Amino acid sequence: MHDAPTGTDRTPEYLTPAEALAHAIEIAADGPAYGPNPRVGCVVLAPGEGSDPRRVLATGIHRGAGTPHAEAAALTQAADAGVDVTGASVFVSLEPCDHQGRTGPCSEALLAAGVAEVTFAVPDPSTVAAGGAAHLAAAGVTVVGPTEVDDGPAHELVRAWLHSVTTGRPFVTLKMATTLDGRVAAADGTSRWVTSETARHHAHERRAEVDAILVGTGTVLADDPALTARAADARPDGSTRGVHQPLRVVLGRTEIPREARLRTTPGGRLVHLRTHDVHEALAELAALEVRHVLVEGGPRVAAQFLRAGLVDEVHAYVAPVLLGAGRPAVADLGLTSISQALRLEPTSVEVLGPDVLVVSRPRRASSDAHATPLTKEH
Amino acid sequence: MHDAPTGTDRTPEYLTPAEALAHAIEIAADGPAYGPNPRVGCVVLAPGEGSDPRRVLATGIHRGAGTPHAEAAALTQAADAGVDVTGASVFVSLEPCDHQGRTGPCSEALLAAGVAEVTFAVPDPSTVAAGGAAHLAAAGVTVVGPTEVDDGPAHELVRAWLHSVTTGRPFVTLKMATTLDGRVAAADGTSRWVTSETARHHAHERRAEVDAILVGTGTVLADDPALTARAADARPDGSTRGVHQPLRVVLGRTEIPREARLRTTPGGRLVHLRTHDVHEALAELAALEVRHVLVEGGPRVAAQFLRAGLVDEVHAYVAPVLLGAGRPAVADLGLTSISQALRLEPTSVEVLGPDVLVVSRPRRASSDAHATPLTKEH
Ligand SMILES: NC(=O)c1ccc[n+]([C@@H]2O[C@H](COP(=O)([O-])OP(=O)(O)OC[C@H]3O[C@@H](n4cnc5c(N)ncnc54)[C@H](OP(=O)(O)O)[C@@H]3O)[C@@H](O)[C@H]2O)c1
Ligand SMILES: NC(=O)c1ccc[n+]([C@@H]2O[C@H](COP(=O)([O-])OP(=O)(O)OC[C@H]3O[C@@H](n4cnc5c(N)ncnc54)[C@H](OP(=O)(O)O)[C@@H]3O)[C@@H](O)[C@H]2O)c1
Repeated sequence: MHDAPTGTDRTPEYLTPAEALAHAIEIAADGPAYGPNPRVGCVVLAPGEGSDPRRVLATGIHRGAGTPHAEAAALTQAADAGVDVTGASVFVSLEPCDHQGRTGPCSEALLAAGVAEVTFAVPDPSTVAAGGAAHLAAAGVTVVGPTEVDDGPAHELVRAWLHSVTTGRPFVTLKMATTLDGRVAAADGTSRWVTSETARHHAHERRAEVDAILVGTGTVLADDPALTARAADARPDGSTRGVHQPLRVVLGRTEIPREARLRTTPGGRLVHLRTHDVHEALAELAALEVRHVLVEGGPRVAAQFLRAGLVDEVHAYVAPVLLGAGRPAVADLGLTSISQALRLEPTSVEVLGPDVLVVSRPRRASSDAHATPLTKEH
Repeated sequence: MHDAPTGTDRTPEYLTPAEALAHAIEIAADGPAYGPNPRVGCVVLAPGEGSDPRRVLATGIHRGAGTPHAEAAALTQAADAGVDVTGASVFVSLEPCDHQGRTGPCSEALLAAGVAEVTFAVPDPSTVAAGGAAHLAAAGVTVVGPTEVDDGPAHELVRAWLHSVTTGRPFVTLKMATTLDGRVAAADGTSRWVTSETARHHAHERRAEVDAILVGTGTVLADDPALTARAADARPDGSTRGVHQPLRVVLGRTEIPREARLRTTPGGRLVHLRTHDVHEALAELAALEVRHVLVEGGPRVAAQFLRAGLVDEVHAYVAPVLLGAGRPAVADLGLTSISQALRLEPTSVEVLGPDVLVVSRPRRASSDAHATPLTKEH
């Protein structure tokens, strides 16, 4: 395997075209989930036709802002190895950019390299970089794609980025750690801990994948959180060395105490947004190149994001715990009847030690079949 | 298979002793989960020694109060088929009774049949029927068991029954259908429906496995429930034909309206307990031979059972829904700090359509490791 002409140890020597596209999507995930740029993977196959396996000439992924795009990385790898890519077939998880960035448009680079065919999974909707497919086709390259129309693994990879470039605001994940009876803190405000070490560790890993963590001043005062991403290997000292640290964002007008751990603990830059306007807050974060923000509460801030329709995903860590009183996970949403309930679509359920993580997203279509009494039984 | 000398189609012709015990436990589950008697299965193997497979001579299960015990059913099956069980080995999921019921003690029946060996999984703790193992051993039968000391599949089968005969009160399962933020009804009291048809169907099937369903008068007035068990095949008309109907128990002093569906819908007998004392309520149900009661709320009644330490299992159906206000799943428990939280041990997590069922039980030992801050990170 070490002699294979690829940058990733897990790339086979031969792949069919369909496998090559799937592999491009798979290796793209090795790039960072945070940052202003999308995760992209690229696989270059030897010239050929049909669906038989062909030799893998090169692979590349994008490793984050300031580093080469996946296509450029693959072409460089081929050039460094003295591999000729003339007439080759290129498989890339996202449409090649047509944008004069620091490395020049990928469309140009692919043309210059003389590849014959480019297949991509997801179209690039960004105003600055779109058009790569058309550019390549106009220059005589066979262009196949987008192969994934609406949803799928390649979309999933760039979900926050796609959302951000199409809406102009960051993708919002609302995270909550609740008891079975929906409490996020006891009556006296204590909330350490509702969930298990396993669930908290999982939540920390999610922090390292986003650009910003946001909480309200109420949570800062009640919990004095550090809002850092802990190392994935869970060093007992809670070390954060070598881990990407998202911006630490506080929403609300109250000053952050001098001695707050947000100030005294090393971590991401502290951004205090002295507003209650969640649209304004997201606009400010977008200006800071935040594509994905994790809103970690508390209940009042969560409610405002929900009321504004700005929550794109909910991560609910549910612990088998009962409190009977205390702070509810979400403050008033102005909903009075069950027919008005905010119904989400679950995308995954994961058992984390004693707890369960339910990930859900707002429904796209207005489907309320779920809410309709199907029988009169109770 | 139809010629096999057994009563159940799925019984193989030959089984090893270990398989025979496992099979006895497996077929026991075909008996009814409700009713005053435990579920028991019995397998009779041809005489022999060691762990090699032997011919299955007969099997039997207990099909509920008023029908023969599993051992008697197996011996009758053998006798009817003209099969000699002299010197046979008997495998039974529960210790044979030593109790003069309508069919005489199983210990006597096994002795009369001349079997050589009896292996059982769970000891019989009941005061009236225990002693079967000792009786058999004293008469020269080789007795092996209990093979399952504390917990396992054979205990699981008779959990409610074991609990009931050892404590003198019914096993209590608390069921709730909550939103992600812990609401069981919206602010205006409406609660149809929090969970999906799939989850509600599952809950209906659980009703058919218990002896009684209990709710408070608040729930009767708010929801006008019928409290019937629906057919497992979910006929669209919500038919209850042929389905075991548990007692319908209402707790509280308010009169049940004449037109309440509890009165007008066919189903289990209606029992109105005009008290707030949950201990007294369980004593009354025990007197009615209730081994397992499903407490279906509402929040105030749930809280009283929890406060009294009388909840043995919680079935929480959690829907990916947010309400922001409304009736919390559990009323005040008198707990003010997170350190006092009632922490349960999850036994299973099941995805039911869009919802999740978390089954949990109170912790046995006083283990609060879960609650201890393991690191200072947040
Ligand atoms: N288990 C969990 O997942 C979890 C997570 C977080 C918090 N908590 C618990 O939640 C409790 C704190 O609750 P909380 O509701 O006070 O916290 P919060 O939502 O973090 O803070 C509320 C404060 O945020 C400010 N704010 C900013 N934008 C706002 C807006 N659009 N609407 C309303 N307020 C806005 C206001 O303060 P200003 O006056 O400063 O503007 C407000 O008082 C604590 O007990 C904490 O332990 C639990
Ligand atoms: N989603 C779900 O799983 C679910 C399930 C059930 C109910 N609910 C919702 O819950 C709401 C009703 O809540 P609730 O708390 O009023 O219902 P509840 O607990 O069923 O009824 C409370 C009433 O029960 C009586 N009671 C009997 N024993 C009691 C005791 N030990 N302590 C206190 N009261 C006792 C009292 O009435 P008396 O004055 O008559 O004695 C009390 O007012 C409705 O909105 C309903 O939709 C939801």
